[in-house]
Amino acid sequence: MNFSSKLIEEAVNAFAGLPGIGRKTALRLVLHLVKQSPEVVEQFAQAMLKMRRNIRECERCHNISDDKLCVICTDRRRDQSLVCVVEGIRDVMAIEGTGQYRGLYHILGGVISPIEGIGPSDLNIDSLVQRAQAGEIREVIMAISPTIEGETTIFYLSKKLRDTDVEVSTIARGISFGGDLEYADELTLGRSIVARVPYKGGGE
Amino acid sequence: MNFSSKLIEEAVNAFAGLPGIGRKTALRLVLHLVKQSPEVVEQFAQAMLKMRRNIRECERCHNISDDKLCVICTDRRRDQSLVCVVEGIRDVMAIEGTGQYRGLYHILGGVISPIEGIGPSDLNIDSLVQRAQAGEIREVIMAISPTIEGETTIFYLSKKLRDTDVEVSTIARGISFGGDLEYADELTLGRSIVARVPYKGGGE
Repeated sequence: MNFSSKLIEEAVNAFAGLPGIGRKTALRLVLHLVKQSPEVVEQFAQAMLKMRRNIRECERCHNISDDKLCVICTDRRRDQSLVCVVEGIRDVMAIEGTGQYRGLYHILGGVISPIEGIGPSDLNIDSLVQRAQAGEIREVIMAISPTIEGETTIFYLSKKLRDTDVEVSTIARGISFGGDLEYADELTLGRSIVARVPYKGGGE
Repeated sequence: MNFSSKLIEEAVNAFAGLPGIGRKTALRLVLHLVKQSPEVVEQFAQAMLKMRRNIRECERCHNISDDKLCVICTDRRRDQSLVCVVEGIRDVMAIEGTGQYRGLYHILGGVISPIEGIGPSDLNIDSLVQRAQAGEIREVIMAISPTIEGETTIFYLSKKLRDTDVEVSTIARGISFGGDLEYADELTLGRSIVARVPYKGGGE
């Protein structure tokens, strides 16, 4: 692309460095910003700078946080003895979005994947074991994707937590609400039959 | 979405204000920036600020420019007597991308559209007429989209330029290279037959 402006070219290159943003989209965004008042662009840039300069990791659960501890860890109305183990920050947001969970979290930062060279030491596993050993946790819920890497990680964690008093559970697997039996994979359908639950009447 | 961080929320809101970026995409971009070093984010923000603070409009052709006149207007190797009239900056980039045009441009900033309340006075028409009256221009090429609004604009401009010595032309309409006759609209196909050109052998 021929930008006929060094300033535009640099701004487009900056946007095009973001994931999923190609050069055409980047140009569209930059031309949008050109049309905005300088104050709007100033605010945009300052929001980025402020975020990156001040964002930190929660010392307890490794969630992104504005302070030493995140708002979830410091919320005393939450069940401090229940910890949900997830791969990343987006999983926390997804679970928070359900409004069904009132415990704490522990963010691993990924799953064990020998192919990608991610071993247990690359993940926030030691800090989870320490939290369990401190005796504050009653139950750990594994909310990790049911892939081979995910299952490996769950297996590794459950072995690590065996010597503590912590109960380990995993989120329920089964047919999604609105899911079509016909199109469900065999493993999920099979497990959903094996792990069937008593029908509690039409009221549930 | 529950961000559990004011900083992240503000950054997501900033990105989500851009066209075509939803809140989920905005979050993905922000989490990408969180993972980058502060220097990378600093550079990103500075590129935006520098661009918006210093970008200006070329005084002659209304192209975006780093200086009083844009790099196209100041390029003395270009034919200064040929002006291509386009709606916007992106059209300039598209035409420059072809490498087939070595004249100057004039950016209208849109087309006449009574429905959207855009009249001739909202567009850079007076400055085009002044350029033509100054006697520097030999030919004006209308490279405007063949919509009703576009055709209206071309008609209006050609009337305005009638009293000058400027020759007015429009870009050729017809079947695209690689286009399928069967799927061409009737207007385009009809015009392409009426405006047929002599075949110059297989060498063209």
